This record gives sequence, C-alpha cells and structure tokens, in this order.
Amino acid sequence: MPRSSLLAFLCLAVFINACLAQTDQFPWSWGFQGSEARQQHRFHSPKACRLENLRAQEAARRIDAEAGCTEIWDQNNEEFQCAGVNMVRHTIRPRGLLLPGFTNAPKLIFVVQGTGIRGVAMPGCPETYQTDLRRSQSAGSFRDEHQKIRQFREGDLLVVPAGVSHWMYNRGQSDLILIVFVDTRNVANQIDPFARKFYLAGRPEMMERGAREAEGRSRSVSTGEKSGNMFSGFADEFLEEAFQVDSGLVRRLKGEDDERDRIVLVDEDFDVLMPERDDQERSRGRYIESESENGFEETVCTLRLKHNIGRSEHADVFNPRGGRISTANFHNLPFLRQVRLSAERGVLYSNAMSAPHYTVNAHTLAYATRGSARVQVVDNFGQSVFDGEVREGQVLMIPQNFVVMTRASDRGFEWIAFKTNDNAITNLLAGRVSQMRLLPVGVLSNMYRISREEAQRLKYGQPEMRVFSPGRSQGRRE
Amino acid sequence: MPRSSLLAFLCLAVFINACLAQTDQFPWSWGFQGSEARQQHRFHSPKACRLENLRAQEAARRIDAEAGCTEIWDQNNEEFQCAGVNMVRHTIRPRGLLLPGFTNAPKLIFVVQGTGIRGVAMPGCPETYQTDLRRSQSAGSFRDEHQKIRQFREGDLLVVPAGVSHWMYNRGQSDLILIVFVDTRNVANQIDPFARKFYLAGRPEMMERGAREAEGRSRSVSTGEKSGNMFSGFADEFLEEAFQVDSGLVRRLKGEDDERDRIVLVDEDFDVLMPERDDQERSRGRYIESESENGFEETVCTLRLKHNIGRSEHADVFNPRGGRISTANFHNLPFLRQVRLSAERGVLYSNAMSAPHYTVNAHTLAYATRGSARVQVVDNFGQSVFDGEVREGQVLMIPQNFVVMTRASDRGFEWIAFKTNDNAITNLLAGRVSQMRLLPVGVLSNMYRISREEAQRLKYGQPEMRVFSPGRSQGRRE
Amino acid sequence: MPRSSLLAFLCLAVFINACLAQTDQFPWSWGFQGSEARQQHRFHSPKACRLENLRAQEAARRIDAEAGCTEIWDQNNEEFQCAGVNMVRHTIRPRGLLLPGFTNAPKLIFVVQGTGIRGVAMPGCPETYQTDLRRSQSAGSFRDEHQKIRQFREGDLLVVPAGVSHWMYNRGQSDLILIVFVDTRNVANQIDPFARKFYLAGRPEMMERGAREAEGRSRSVSTGEKSGNMFSGFADEFLEEAFQVDSGLVRRLKGEDDERDRIVLVDEDFDVLMPERDDQERSRGRYIESESENGFEETVCTLRLKHNIGRSEHADVFNPRGGRISTANFHNLPFLRQVRLSAERGVLYSNAMSAPHYTVNAHTLAYATRGSARVQVVDNFGQSVFDGEVREGQVLMIPQNFVVMTRASDRGFEWIAFKTNDNAITNLLAGRVSQMRLLPVGVLSNMYRISREEAQRLKYGQPEMRVFSPGRSQGRRE
Repeated sequence: MPRSSLLAFLCLAVFINACLAQTDQFPWSWGFQGSEARQQHRFHSPKACRLENLRAQEAARRIDAEAGCTEIWDQNNEEFQCAGVNMVRHTIRPRGLLLPGFTNAPKLIFVVQGTGIRGVAMPGCPETYQTDLRRSQSAGSFRDEHQKIRQFREGDLLVVPAGVSHWMYNRGQSDLILIVFVDTRNVANQIDPFARKFYLAGRPEMMERGAREAEGRSRSVSTGEKSGNMFSGFADEFLEEAFQVDSGLVRRLKGEDDERDRIVLVDEDFDVLMPERDDQERSRGRYIESESENGFEETVCTLRLKHNIGRSEHADVFNPRGGRISTANFHNLPFLRQVRLSAERGVLYSNAMSAPHYTVNAHTLAYATRGSARVQVVDNFGQSVFDGEVREGQVLMIPQNFVVMTRASDRGFEWIAFKTNDNAITNLLAGRVSQMRLLPVGVLSNMYRISREEAQRLKYGQPEMRVFSPGRSQGRRE
Repeated sequence: MPRSSLLAFLCLAVFINACLAQTDQFPWSWGFQGSEARQQHRFHSPKACRLENLRAQEAARRIDAEAGCTEIWDQNNEEFQCAGVNMVRHTIRPRGLLLPGFTNAPKLIFVVQGTGIRGVAMPGCPETYQTDLRRSQSAGSFRDEHQKIRQFREGDLLVVPAGVSHWMYNRGQSDLILIVFVDTRNVANQIDPFARKFYLAGRPEMMERGAREAEGRSRSVSTGEKSGNMFSGFADEFLEEAFQVDSGLVRRLKGEDDERDRIVLVDEDFDVLMPERDDQERSRGRYIESESENGFEETVCTLRLKHNIGRSEHADVFNPRGGRISTANFHNLPFLRQVRLSAERGVLYSNAMSAPHYTVNAHTLAYATRGSARVQVVDNFGQSVFDGEVREGQVLMIPQNFVVMTRASDRGFEWIAFKTNDNAITNLLAGRVSQMRLLPVGVLSNMYRISREEAQRLKYGQPEMRVFSPGRSQGRRE
Repeated sequence: MPRSSLLAFLCLAVFINACLAQTDQFPWSWGFQGSEARQQHRFHSPKACRLENLRAQEAARRIDAEAGCTEIWDQNNEEFQCAGVNMVRHTIRPRGLLLPGFTNAPKLIFVVQGTGIRGVAMPGCPETYQTDLRRSQSAGSFRDEHQKIRQFREGDLLVVPAGVSHWMYNRGQSDLILIVFVDTRNVANQIDPFARKFYLAGRPEMMERGAREAEGRSRSVSTGEKSGNMFSGFADEFLEEAFQVDSGLVRRLKGEDDERDRIVLVDEDFDVLMPERDDQERSRGRYIESESENGFEETVCTLRLKHNIGRSEHADVFNPRGGRISTANFHNLPFLRQVRLSAERGVLYSNAMSAPHYTVNAHTLAYATRGSARVQVVDNFGQSVFDGEVREGQVLMIPQNFVVMTRASDRGFEWIAFKTNDNAITNLLAGRVSQMRLLPVGVLSNMYRISREEAQRLKYGQPEMRVFSPGRSQGRRE
C-alpha cells in the first residue's frame, strides 16, 4: 500500500512535471507565437527598400546545357534584393542529371512537371545509407554503398538546406520542370545576401553575375564565362594525393574541357543502380522511400524533405466554384522549421478571386505556373504598387504586410508562392474569418463613417472564405 | 509484485527522463542564458554608428486629428537609426478612437495618463471572440460577434506584435496619453529598418517621412501630404466584389474625403457595444478581462498583452528615500518573449541618484514622463557622450553597454525605458550587488593603484542598491 | 487492481507524453538540425563580400603595457569585415594582470602558452561568490567576498559572453600567450559590426581605430591616443556620491596619470588573496574550480566556461602518422550554445595533409600556433582565392562553404580555428566518410565522364579520414 502510494505520488509528480514542461514550451511550438518567437530569423534589407513599383518578372537569362536548360532571374532588382530572395528554373530532359552542388542559402524546389530521383548529402549522417542492390545486373556481386535516393513527382515541394549538396535526375518520359527558390537573407547564409552555388563536378557557366558585378570589380565578367567546380582551383598534386588517383582522373575531377554545363545526359545503364524503377505503379517505393510518418522511427537521416501540395485532396481551403489553396509549413513538413521557409500552392478557377489579404510575418515570392490573373498590391501609404497581369512563367514579390488581391482570367490561374517564414500567417480582410469580422460593428461604423446597418453589411456581406466564387458581385461595374 | 516492479521501473525511467529533459533545456529558460541564447535576435546597424554626441530629443512633428493629436520623433537621427528604434506619442481626447492599423515591427505602448479599451486582432484566433451583449440597447436581439476587447489604464505597458492590427479608444474623462515604442530592427520586421504603418480606415497624413526621404526619390513628399488606408489603392470593382457591397460603401472603405486623420471622434452610442463600462469601480472587468494567470487555462487567444508597471507596490527596487524601479520582462509578461522587448519604469525622488550602470544585452530608449534629471552617459573610450538635462517629454537613447548615471532635479524624475531584449540585464557599477563587489580586494587595489584599505572603501562604501538616497555624499563639492 | 491499472495507465500516458515531447524537440537538440534551427543566429555582411584574394595576415599593431603587450589585427580588412570577426593577441608576463573590462560581442580565448587565473562577472549571479580565505595572511580575520576565480592553462578554450567583464592574471613562471577571437557580427552585439572594449580601470591606448575611422570623423584619432576607462567621463561629484568616497579616490578610479596601459604588474602580495596556488600539483583546485560535470548540481553560476582542446587524448580525429583534430562545440562545452561559437584545434605532422573540406554552416578564422603549411582555398567559381604559406602567428579567414586543403611543411603545422557556429559542421570531400562516398558510382561516372571502375577508385582510393598520412601519393609529380 505505501508502495503503491509512493508510485502514485511519483507518477503524479511526473505527470504534473510533464504538463508544466509542456506549458512552458507552448509559446515555442504553437501557431502564431512560434512564428514570432522562434522562426522569424532572417536578415532584412539594411537600406530603405524602394517598393513603389513592383514588377512581374520573367527569367532574365537562359543557360543551355547538354540535357536541358537553366533560366535565372536577375538577382539585382530592387524587390529581390530587398526581400533577399532569388529564383531559378531548371528544365531537365529525360535522362538528364543536374550535377551535384550546394548553395550558401537554403532552397525550396517546386516540381512543376515531371518525376525524378535525387540524392541529398545530409551531414550528421556520416555513415553511408545502404541500398539493397538485388536488381543490379552489371556489377555482379559488387554492392555499392551510397546515400539515400529520394523520389519526387509533380506537385512536390522539396527542401534543400544551405551548404548541403544534392543532385537531381529526370527518370520520367517528359521534361522535368523545377522552380527553385533561394532565400539569400536566411540566417543560414553567413556571407552576404547573394547566392553562391558550388558544384562538385563539371564546368558550368557563371550564373551569379549579380554578386560579381555588385562587387564592382574592374575585371569584367562577360556573360557566358565558364566557371569551374570546387576542385578546379586546387593544385593537381594536392588532389592526386588526397584522392590517391593519377593525373588523368584529376583532370576529369576538375572538369577540364567539360562543355556539358550543369545538366548532363546520362548513359544508358545509369538507371541500373537505381532500385524500384516502377514507382509510377506504386504510390511509394518500398526500399527507396520508406519514409516513416512515425516519430519514433524517424532519425535525422530519414527525415522527410518533401511534401506534396499539388493534389486537390490536400487543400487547406477549397471552394468548388472558386479554387483551392494548399500549404506546406512546419506543421506538415517539420524540416521546414530548419530552413525557416514555407510555401503555398494556389489554384483559382476562371474569374474567381482571392480575398484581399496580407502576410503577417513573411515576404512572398509568387511564381505563376499556369494561366494568368489580374493582381493588385497596395502599400502602407494606401498606394497601388502593382496593378497588372501576372502570366505563366512570371514572378511577383509581395513584401511583408503589403495587401494583395487577385482575380483569375478566363483561363484560370495557378501559382506557387514561397514565403520567408516556416509558419507564414495570412490575414484576410474580407469574407468569413477576416479582420472585418473581428471588429465590433460600433468600431466599424465610426471608422468608416457609415451606419450600423452598413457596417453589418460590410462585415457579413461576403460569406465565402479566402477564395471567392466568380460572378457574385452585386455592384460590379465592368 | 513483478507488475509493481515494472511500474516502479517505468515511473523511475520517466522521472529520470523528464529530469534530463529539463536539464537539457535549462539554458533556454533561465535568466542570463536565456537572454543570450534565445532572445537576442535583432539586427544591428550595418554601418559604424556615430555615438559621440547623444541628444535628448523632443517630438519633431505634430499631426492634429479630429479627436487628438499624434507627435512623432525624427526616425532618421543617428541614435535612433543606429539602435533601430522609433517613438510616437498619441494624445487621444475623451471619446477619441485611434483607427485600427498595424505596423511591420513590434511595439510597446506605455499609458502615461488615462484609461481606455482596445482590440488586438491576434492571428491564430481566427474564430471570433464572443462577448455577451446583455446590456446592448439599440440592436435588439442582435448579438454582435467580434474580437476580445481589452481594458488598460495609466501605468500599463501594452504589447502589439508586428503585423497585427489594433485600435484604441479613450473611454475616460481626461486625455489619454500614450507613448509608443517601435522596434524597427526587430527580426519580426523583414523589410528594412523603417516603420510602416498600415491603416484599415481613414486617410491619415503620412508620418513615415524618414523612410520615404531615405529612399531618395525625386518625387518630393511634402509634409502634410495625405496618405490612404490599405483599401485606397484597390480598384473599386475589386472591393465591391470582395465585400459584396455597392460603390457608395466602397468609397467609405477607401476613406475618400475623410479629413479626421487617425484619431476620430466617436458618436454617442459607440459605447453601447462595450460591456462593463463601470470598470473604474471594479479592479478587473469580469467579462472583458478575465485574463487568467493560470497557465493551464490560458490559450493563445487569451494571453495577457499588458502589465502594470506604474504602481509602487509592483516595484522591483524600492528605496523609501530614493525612489523605485519596476520592470516588465518575459518573467512577468511572457508575451514579451514573442516581441523580444522589455521595459522599465523608474521614479527618482528629489535629488536622488541612480547607480552607475550599463545594460548588458540591449539598447535603452528612455522617455521622461515627469520632472527632470541630469544624466551622464560614457562610451567605451571613457568619453562623455551625453551630459545634460533630460526633461519631461524628451527621449534619450542609451546604446548597449554604454554607462549611465542619473541625478534627479529638485522636482524629481520619472521615466519609462524601453529595452531591446525581453530579458534586459542591468549591471550595476556601484553600491550593493555591483560589479565592484564581485572583484577581489587584491584585484581592485592593483587595478586602481590604491591601498587595500581604499579598495575596501571603494567596494563597501555605498551600502544602497540601484537607487541612492540624496545628500549622503561625503566628498560632494557642489 | 483497478488502482494498479490506473497507475499503469498514468505511467504509460506520461511515458508517451515524455517521448513525444522529446521527439518534438529533437530537431532543436541534435546535430545538424540544431545547428540550422537554433544556433545560426548571426549577421551576414549587408554588402557583397569581395573574397577573391584572401590573405594570411599578421598583427597590424602592437601596444606595449607595463607587464606585457597586446597585438591587434586590422579590423577593417575585407575578409574580417565580411565575416564580422576580429582577433587580438595578449602576451602577459608573470604577475601581469589584464585589467577587467567587457566587449559588446562574445569572445573565445585560446591559451597558446602559460597558466593563469581569471574572474568572469556573470550576471544572473548577483550574490557574490564566497571563497574560503583560510590561507589569507595579511587581512587578519577579514573575509573578502568576491566572484568565483577560475583557473586555466595551455590548450584551454575560454568563453567570454558579450557585455560581461573579466580579468586575467598570469600566475605562472613563463609568459602567458592568449589568442582572442571576437565575433562582432554575433547577435549579442546590437550596436554595429565593430568591437568596443569597455575597461573598468586604467587608461589604455585606443585599439578600436577601425571603428573610429570608419565613422569618417573629421577629428583625427592618432595612433597611440590614450583612451579612458568607463569612469573617466563622469563628473567627479557624481562618482564621489555614488561610491561615497573622496576626490582622491575618484581620481584613481578615473585612471588619471595611469601609464601602465591594459596589462599591469601586480605587487607582491596580490597572490595572497588567491587560494590554491599549488594547482600545478593538482589536476583541479578543490575550492576554486569544483566545476561539476554533473548536470544536476550545476547552476548558472558554476557553468563551465572552458574546455581543454590541447591534449591529444581529447582528439576527435587521430591518425598516428598524420596528426589530430580536437573540437570544442556545444556538446562538450554547453556554454558555447550561448555565444553560438565553436573551435577546432588541429595538429598536422611533417608533410601530412588534411582532407579537402568545407564548413557547412560557419566561417572559420584560423590562427597558426606553430610551424607552417601550404594552404589552398577555392571559391564557388572554382577559382583559387588563396594559395600560399601560412606561418606561426598568421591568421587566415576561410568563408562559409569555401573549400580548403592544407599540407604541413617539414616542420609540421598546428592551428586553432574559431568557427561562427556552436555546432560547426565540416563536410569532407575525399577519404573515408566523405561526400564522394555518399554518391552512387553511377552518378560519379556520369558527373565526371569516367568509367565505373574509375569512379570506384575515386570513391574508395583514399582509405584515411580527415587527416591523411604523408607520402602515400601514387601520382605525385613533385
């Protein structure tokens, strides 16, 4: 009996202890507070940002490679510089391999089209990941050990931490189209607000013109100048000794005479080493992608680095007549907490409209994946800083707290929006669950000099939420 | 028996587990370490700060409104720019309403005088807060749903997170005077080190001249230029469709022809919607402000956003002949952890002196609420960077680690000091609990080339702490 | 029975609860993720960094003092400014005391040579630390109370938080040589990216020329200009009243006519106050340094502020023919989490080589303590940004993600490398546990256009890890 009492006491003590511990932590693990307290760790622009004239921007330059092409946005425009963000689009043809490399800032990649595999060399996993090569045909009894290989497909959002190298390969039948968002003002980047890509192989054309030019160097860097990979600058004898290989192999390592640029065509039997080719038939590869959702089995080396936000069944907001919005944030993709980023996938049907809103705690870099829309953005002076069309392939940067409204064209509008906070919070200004609903009718009537009845109309007139169906306007003048 | 043993083992395992977990965390939840490790996330000035000549500054400009006025400090002076802070003072006449709006940086508000109510539209609480409208007279059976309404009174410190809109209303009989501290270099602000205020209504005069001018735009912004609210810049048809209202209401929404500026006079029956008018009779409104201090019942939507530091019974340091100091930091107002700020309320009686001290981990922006004092500030070169009077209505920025001494005038001195750390640490240099007491006498005698007896006098001569009584000087020469 | 069941249920509930809590936290407490999520909180350079020509740099200026000298590096060179780091070397002669002072940024100190004691005035420990003065001879029954005194010796890494004053004393027979690393872009520094040292005593020569010159002041600051301590700038009557001392003592406090600079010679009986002189005979002083490794007994005031990385038995990597590397990070010195810094002590034997590698999440400031080496550094364009000798007394800044290789000279090479992350992660590019081993052979053969057999050689040719033995090159051409 006394023993049971002791047990009971102990248990209770532990229970209370645990509860208190949780209470103590909740500001760090829940919604709004978490976002304020833990996750907003980014640099802002040291100078005043000029944000009176935002522009929908297309890729500024295209670099062709053996098995695809890379299009880059100008890193030096005012909006991108202010927000500290950048964008790149890769088109990888079937059997194309994007060479391994890493960047001094974290990246999010949205798979616009296609399917593929990739390797992410996560540090903290120094032991190689073993893959069962039962289906290997050529290598006989040799068993290659290498890092985990990860599959991805259209609609996936992929994470790449700063300083971590990764490669991507198109194993599908169609072109693989990837939109890469780089967060150059992320705290993970300790150098300066410019992206620097380090390649492990090849001799890709320089793409960081911005950074170089901003350095104001007298030596001009002409567009198209070939760069080197991270081994190119070392002395041959250093590399020979380090790798214990001969000078011929060192020349290959340094990428001399390599004209394929960053996306190379892979020879026929490359795929032999990749198990589970038939992933299209299965929803998840058994050996490749046994990513457990069970917290107990997951370790740092098996953490999920992707989340599908393309499919409508995953939508957070869904209006059958208006469209849908899906979000990837630290709640459904915990690794985003590490890179302090999130993303939103949106679809507006023909002529549908998204509610006026602003993002409380993040900048937004939106890329139009399909269709077009008329977008309006308003700043703190109540002035329009953007009013125009945004079409497929264009990017618009919407600064933190700036208010935005979007109406899809007849063709509809689809976008992927990257946000500089792993728990970006959207405040709606009209419709259900909006700021207007939070205000007492008495405050509304006085702030807008309207009657109490008008205030009620303003507050309750729009019954839909976030995505508004088209054609319900009662006062539309067009 | 074996079952009990298993139980005991389990319990013990859990207990140890929990203890270890706590140990692992303690650097993040206790005093000094917490401040170093978790809470100091702010930008510093990218350029060298010129801090040899600090100035006590008064408001630079005054903007009159229908029911009060707003005075602003120059955002572009060297000290404010270096520290990334700004200050605004609102004077709201009885029945005056400060229009709802939000800023891209967190704010602290000290209630210098008066009493009022406010609404804070906390995101993460999308469900409206229901208020019991039993006393409503006009609306009949209509029950309005809106956000929580919060009361405040003289001596309260109020928190406003970045990007969160709030309104304030003077329900008292005298003017409501508010001092607003804006932390523009806070990490919550991702744009640039300038405050941008977004209004939901009205057409207030531009107050962010600094930011605009710093942008070096050719288009001149004349003082007094009217701005717009966040709806002003949108097309009418967008707003009509979004709110499902007619064009007349949209014009009201956009604030056209609204000359009342940001503080408007409310019509007679505004208060009808506010329950518990008789708060002066009660210490806490039952329905309005049932803010639980009990962690188990609190949720994100009921978190306390205020703390009273005006009353002497809350003082952290109290010297009946010298004065008192009260502090609001994350210990007594946990929400400060979210905005990484704290505040100190000080009162020095006639001719009393505060101990020489510096703030280890924060800048200080001090506003004199009453009386005057002679203040001296010394930099790292041992040079005086401020030596002068600070009077009621003036602001002095004291940089991190700079040493300060204050002696109240005959009239005494009262101030509110805002600090850029939610756990700002003050190191005292004289008196009880000071740095001198930490040093061995042997070190003191050698560092100052004095005898051991003199070192003891230096160390133990001043028996008071933080606030020194007047007139005890033995060597005073004046 | 039902009671036992309840107990069992409770226990299980707690157990699961605790496990989940841990799972929830593990991204914040383990290896890689921790580093990304919690620990990388530093400023980067707001402008593009010019990093094409790194230089091995020697101290730029030397300031002689009564009992030693201080050598300082130029704070304004491109590399140091970009990384936001700075370096100082103190040489303290026997019985020399480095005057107490604090800096607006955290520091790491490596003890290159000698032994000593120091005091660190940790805030959050306002109560004085009591030392048992049983051996005190002169003071009779007087018992002095002061802060904890901490011992250190050659090979120790010492931590000094921002804004916390400390003093150091050479109690050994030989010169005490200290290398001080200052992290000026650390978030703990809220002013600007320059170090500001505040002295509590003396009148040391200005060493922060950089900051002053960068301010572009017309008033020229000539080298050698005497500065003052933090009391120098106050009015005499303020200090007299605050300390309750006479004007003679105030003049001493202000350091007037003090020509000893920052390192002063201590009179004979200084040591009397220091208990446990015989620390050379004991491994740890019983009264002075009873630093418990046991988490349960440690409090904030007894936290370890040092870790020995000099001795070979503590090496993390050890190759009997190549050398060794020891690391101090938050795992073995938890306080580093507070200052977000770590350090690496390296020894390469004659002609040994370190593997090509880069630091994922930190800059590196390496100081050569002995010998010399040929070092090569390559940037993201594959271009060599440094290729030269680094000798004893020189410093090289290696930016985040830049790739480095080192080969010791015949005399061998020893260094201390300071890193701007408390969990700096090194990615190796050759040898065992390298990036090459993570890549599938099929990817390697395609990225380098080599055969599968050559890819295997590249991957497995070098069997050693991190530190490579000399003379094993098969293709070396020298």
